[in-house]
Amino acid sequence: MSLTSPPVASLPPALEETLESILGDRYSTRPAILQQHGRGESHHTPAPPAAVAYVTSSAEVLALARACHRQQTPMIAHGAGTSVEGQLQCVQGGVAVDFSTMNRILAINPGDQDCLVEPGVTREQLNLALRDQGLFFPVDPGANATLGGMAATGASGTTTLRYGGMKANVLALEAVLADGAQIQTGSAARKSSAGYNLTELLIGSEGTLALITGLRLRLHAIPPHVTTAQVGFPSVAQAVAAVIAMLQHGLHPALLELLDSAAMAAVNQYCRTRYPEQPSLFLEFHGTLDATTEQAACAETLCRDQGSTGLQWARQEEDRRRQWHARHQAYYAALAQVPHGQGWVTDVCVPLSRLAQCIEATQADLAAAQLQVPLVGHVGDGNFHLLFSIAPDDIERRAQAEAIHQRLVERAHSLGGTCTGEHGIGLGKKAFLLQEKGATTVAVMTAIKKALDPMNLLNPGKLF
Amino acid sequence: MSLTSPPVASLPPALEETLESILGDRYSTRPAILQQHGRGESHHTPAPPAAVAYVTSSAEVLALARACHRQQTPMIAHGAGTSVEGQLQCVQGGVAVDFSTMNRILAINPGDQDCLVEPGVTREQLNLALRDQGLFFPVDPGANATLGGMAATGASGTTTLRYGGMKANVLALEAVLADGAQIQTGSAARKSSAGYNLTELLIGSEGTLALITGLRLRLHAIPPHVTTAQVGFPSVAQAVAAVIAMLQHGLHPALLELLDSAAMAAVNQYCRTRYPEQPSLFLEFHGTLDATTEQAACAETLCRDQGSTGLQWARQEEDRRRQWHARHQAYYAALAQVPHGQGWVTDVCVPLSRLAQCIEATQADLAAAQLQVPLVGHVGDGNFHLLFSIAPDDIERRAQAEAIHQRLVERAHSLGGTCTGEHGIGLGKKAFLLQEKGATTVAVMTAIKKALDPMNLLNPGKLF
Repeated sequence: MSLTSPPVASLPPALEETLESILGDRYSTRPAILQQHGRGESHHTPAPPAAVAYVTSSAEVLALARACHRQQTPMIAHGAGTSVEGQLQCVQGGVAVDFSTMNRILAINPGDQDCLVEPGVTREQLNLALRDQGLFFPVDPGANATLGGMAATGASGTTTLRYGGMKANVLALEAVLADGAQIQTGSAARKSSAGYNLTELLIGSEGTLALITGLRLRLHAIPPHVTTAQVGFPSVAQAVAAVIAMLQHGLHPALLELLDSAAMAAVNQYCRTRYPEQPSLFLEFHGTLDATTEQAACAETLCRDQGSTGLQWARQEEDRRRQWHARHQAYYAALAQVPHGQGWVTDVCVPLSRLAQCIEATQADLAAAQLQVPLVGHVGDGNFHLLFSIAPDDIERRAQAEAIHQRLVERAHSLGGTCTGEHGIGLGKKAFLLQEKGATTVAVMTAIKKALDPMNLLNPGKLF
Repeated sequence: MSLTSPPVASLPPALEETLESILGDRYSTRPAILQQHGRGESHHTPAPPAAVAYVTSSAEVLALARACHRQQTPMIAHGAGTSVEGQLQCVQGGVAVDFSTMNRILAINPGDQDCLVEPGVTREQLNLALRDQGLFFPVDPGANATLGGMAATGASGTTTLRYGGMKANVLALEAVLADGAQIQTGSAARKSSAGYNLTELLIGSEGTLALITGLRLRLHAIPPHVTTAQVGFPSVAQAVAAVIAMLQHGLHPALLELLDSAAMAAVNQYCRTRYPEQPSLFLEFHGTLDATTEQAACAETLCRDQGSTGLQWARQEEDRRRQWHARHQAYYAALAQVPHGQGWVTDVCVPLSRLAQCIEATQADLAAAQLQVPLVGHVGDGNFHLLFSIAPDDIERRAQAEAIHQRLVERAHSLGGTCTGEHGIGLGKKAFLLQEKGATTVAVMTAIKKALDPMNLLNPGKLF
């Protein structure tokens, strides 16, 4: 991807001065810093901000928002920079508010199974701090994203099947509105019916309604026992049928991940493993020893009913790590298939009963285009991704990817699904949002946006 | 409670004519019908509508909303009439839109573990229809409420600890806005990051943002095995300590319900049971036989650590029903303590670590007022209720209840909790909402209300 971008208009001098007085040398207009803040991990054209503000406290964010509001200057929240639909592109310039420097874990409450964190804390940083307490934070989108960014994107991932995504695991938010007003959503209680659910409204709003400055997160006890397995199937349809059977039998897996043949081949090549190169499920059960053993046995029977070969159980921590390493490397394995390849990742989610159909039609599209593109999915939720890897100058392959993506989203819509299970709308899926929801429903969203941010200062140009 | 209410202004003749032409004899202005629609199951002063519209389809709701919008007439959604914070009172007259006649189950999809229902379907009606499919809908607020009403109130209840409340179990909504526009939120997929989370915004909005005309609900496999137990403790603090220990040990109970000594005494009297009259937990594990057995054994140890007497396990269906009958009868047992007593139910939710403190201080308040008021709680979530029973003419006891309630909410707030875990704001908790959230956050809520319903036609006078 090219890093050449249009020249950036600078901020009004009065605003520059104010931000420098608030932030000192944490205010930057260095070209390299601006370029770095003009994109996430995506194929979208970069668009750098006019300035970057490395914030360290709510008070600074408040002062910054008031100053930007006075000067009608856009504010674009920036976390770890791992979003993939162009959420971070500063398409109208403005100030990138970098939260990576606001990353303190403020409280961990084992009795309440919750914690209070600043938005720049990453999920790995949090889990490291929690380990000694017997607790963990389950949401795992793959990247080591910041928790503020994960909330803003409505992230989910591998463990969402059992523990839910950010929606289920954020109890409360502190946030700053476009005009610098501060709000508190939710409470420290596990549940509340007090007024509109502003927490959920901010989750997944992609920085367009408020700047998140604090999060109270729900934590979970580290399960006493974990059982992990990998199993291959003759076809995607049979793998998905096994998934449906497990859920219908009341099994409660923590993870149910699918890798198709192309993904398994890419993993084998990248990790030097020798998995059979067929559609495979990686599954995991969390619980007491007896519970996981019993569920594993039932899962094995249901998988065999669908023509699977035997399950490879990983009962020891070391074996588990090896198995999950393979799953977690799928993205990098896909990238590595093309020299200098850059990621171009799709994301749809469909009802489980239509999942096999959706995947198989997509694989037929790929075969017709003579492409080998790994497919991985959080299939217990009906969510999957194609992992394109495209060299920066390969215009033809990019066009192919775009065409296949377009057809994939249309297919997901026709099957009752959504154009994005977890990556969000950003710049990339604005047209799809309108297709999916219709003009009236999108008009309700824009009415909310206008009510909360009438000058369109927060991450302008996204979603709509 | 008195059923005398102020006389009701009638609707504009043009509107009456339109509604009659849409609904025929399902449009009513009979006084008895109006009185019946002027209240829920609450202690708030009734306020009947000017007319009642029994709707049977989305098309009728659409036409009704357009007609009411033209004549600037309030619309108040009415389900089973079981809300308890005055949500159904038609404080500005208008039309009560009764959804009880729009109660078809449109589709049950076992492969997707979801269903599509009209808003007037009750939870018991749905579970009866699901039983043969091996599926169930878990949210249980006690009353046999309509699913539309449960969504509007953001209901939760006994099984929320494991399965979540309405928030976690509504996948998508069809709804009609104040001006008669129809929107679709969510999708048939298990998850989505497509735009603002309007589903969650409508859940718990108490009919102030839209009229819900259809719901896609998440279903769950009926667990292969259920183990239920009842256990007494020397003190509330020890019962709550046992709850916290269970959660910290990674046990995954489906229900964890507390009844205090007064509640156990009321149940014994009402159900002619002989439970020890001490703070008691009712708990339930769902899963495979080994899993529930193992968890039950661990739970028993943890309860003994907190000084409990032995657990009374109910492993047979018949014993389970008997035990849960006692728990479910607590509300009626409380009512029966006072001749002609009417319910006056509180609802706060606090962090688990502060729950015992909150309950004990509340019991001290009751003792000081020489009152025996049963307390029941979904304590796994930190949520509990006081079940006052007050004779209609007992002004003194009502004043006592109000004073104790006021102090209870202030206590919940001071402990980081919320003024309502599941009953909502309605008329009764408007002042508490402001106390809890602060003026800036409530202003965001009212901005959303104004953006979606600028003429304040949907359930006016509630929340704010």
